Amino acid sequence: MISVVLIGAGNVATHLYKAFSKAENVSVTQWYNRTRSSISSYVNEVDITDSLKDLKKADIYIIAVSDDSIAQLSEDLPFSNRLVAHTSGSVSIHDMNKKNKLGVFYPLQTFSKNTELDFSEVPICIEIIEKKNLKLLKDLAEAIGCKAYKVYTEQRQTMHLAAVFVNNFTNQMYRIAHEIGETENVDFNLLKPLLLETARKVQHISPYMAQTGPAKRNDKKTIKRHLKQIEKDEHKKIYELLTNSIKKTHGHR
Amino acid sequence: MISVVLIGAGNVATHLYKAFSKAENVSVTQWYNRTRSSISSYVNEVDITDSLKDLKKADIYIIAVSDDSIAQLSEDLPFSNRLVAHTSGSVSIHDMNKKNKLGVFYPLQTFSKNTELDFSEVPICIEIIEKKNLKLLKDLAEAIGCKAYKVYTEQRQTMHLAAVFVNNFTNQMYRIAHEIGETENVDFNLLKPLLLETARKVQHISPYMAQTGPAKRNDKKTIKRHLKQIEKDEHKKIYELLTNSIKKTHGHR
Repeated sequence: MISVVLIGAGNVATHLYKAFSKAENVSVTQWYNRTRSSISSYVNEVDITDSLKDLKKADIYIIAVSDDSIAQLSEDLPFSNRLVAHTSGSVSIHDMNKKNKLGVFYPLQTFSKNTELDFSEVPICIEIIEKKNLKLLKDLAEAIGCKAYKVYTEQRQTMHLAAVFVNNFTNQMYRIAHEIGETENVDFNLLKPLLLETARKVQHISPYMAQTGPAKRNDKKTIKRHLKQIEKDEHKKIYELLTNSIKKTHGHR
Repeated sequence: MISVVLIGAGNVATHLYKAFSKAENVSVTQWYNRTRSSISSYVNEVDITDSLKDLKKADIYIIAVSDDSIAQLSEDLPFSNRLVAHTSGSVSIHDMNKKNKLGVFYPLQTFSKNTELDFSEVPICIEIIEKKNLKLLKDLAEAIGCKAYKVYTEQRQTMHLAAVFVNNFTNQMYRIAHEIGETENVDFNLLKPLLLETARKVQHISPYMAQTGPAKRNDKKTIKRHLKQIEKDEHKKIYELLTNSIKKTHGHR
């Protein structure tokens, strides 16, 4: 049984709490948040606290707070020589206070408060300073059904950057399509099967192989008409830049 | 029973052929392609031809060829007053020769030769000139399990433009993430659950609500580090433009 103290109450923390509670081999010893009210609805299932001084003993302390708060929080922990791991994709492991044994437990996934998530599909990227701390973090990942991957700092930060492209930027493509559609009363619902299939396709073939459309074909007539159709300058710029990027990828200049 | 002559042998044509053959209420009378060899493997299941002169009589002629070939092909059809529909998202219905009754049968989906597709999730956008031709095209869409939507030209062209964003441009995001990952040996497979969840999320909540990440939070430190991490100028430009787009959407300037 792995005992965990969870720190933070954002989307990642909340999803991790649910996964930890469900897991047979994990027990959540305590859940800390600086404002008690954010987690008070869980008071009947887990020990909650808003005081770092009251933190109980556990095998692993998971810090799932905003990037900017990790360093300070790790300093404020009133104990030493215990295993403390943050969940950020970009914060350096060395930003945490060295009085404890340090790790990173980064779930490469997007979390929303109201969206259920199947953890068996979440890769957990693990970083440690001392090798002997690897097993416990790996066991924790596997206990919630995840695949664990040992990574080094630059690799995790590259993953985080790549994740911005496949998640944040992709989502902005959806957003722009939503906006463009509105000009002619195109219901965004009609685009949902297409965008889902776009993501499904690259589960089996590479994005390079999966590409289709006017930019890949270098279909100048359609590209020109699209640019004429687009109303917002910002959208035009994005269309041009990404069209050129696709053309370049597929050898059209 | 709706009889169909299918014209063309690209991805759309091939997927439509499979859907038509499977459908109980549709019979493929004939499959035409200008080069016989592309469809010759189907010779045992359907009448195939590479001669327009030999086209048989059918309720609907579906022209699923490249955008640039539609006009000429519709002119070369050796008959008149029959229902002829192209499958393009962007070509005007009026580009086809008026000797026949004209329609558009545009499946809003991405098709790859080797990827199976569930047609029940494909919206078919139907355009017609004379209202009386709507029913037959609608029946055909529904016979293969699709939802049919009557659209007007500007609406279809807007859908096609929006589709470029959610499909081609999104896929290029995947491609760039793939490239960026390679610099630190990040396996693209690790990003697959994330990009799939990104598409799944907006099935239930709007892209606006689904957005997360450094641009949305206006997290300048992370954005700056990401820009430093990116090696290619082209990727840097895309990162900057899309980060600004997200910031603007979420009120950060």
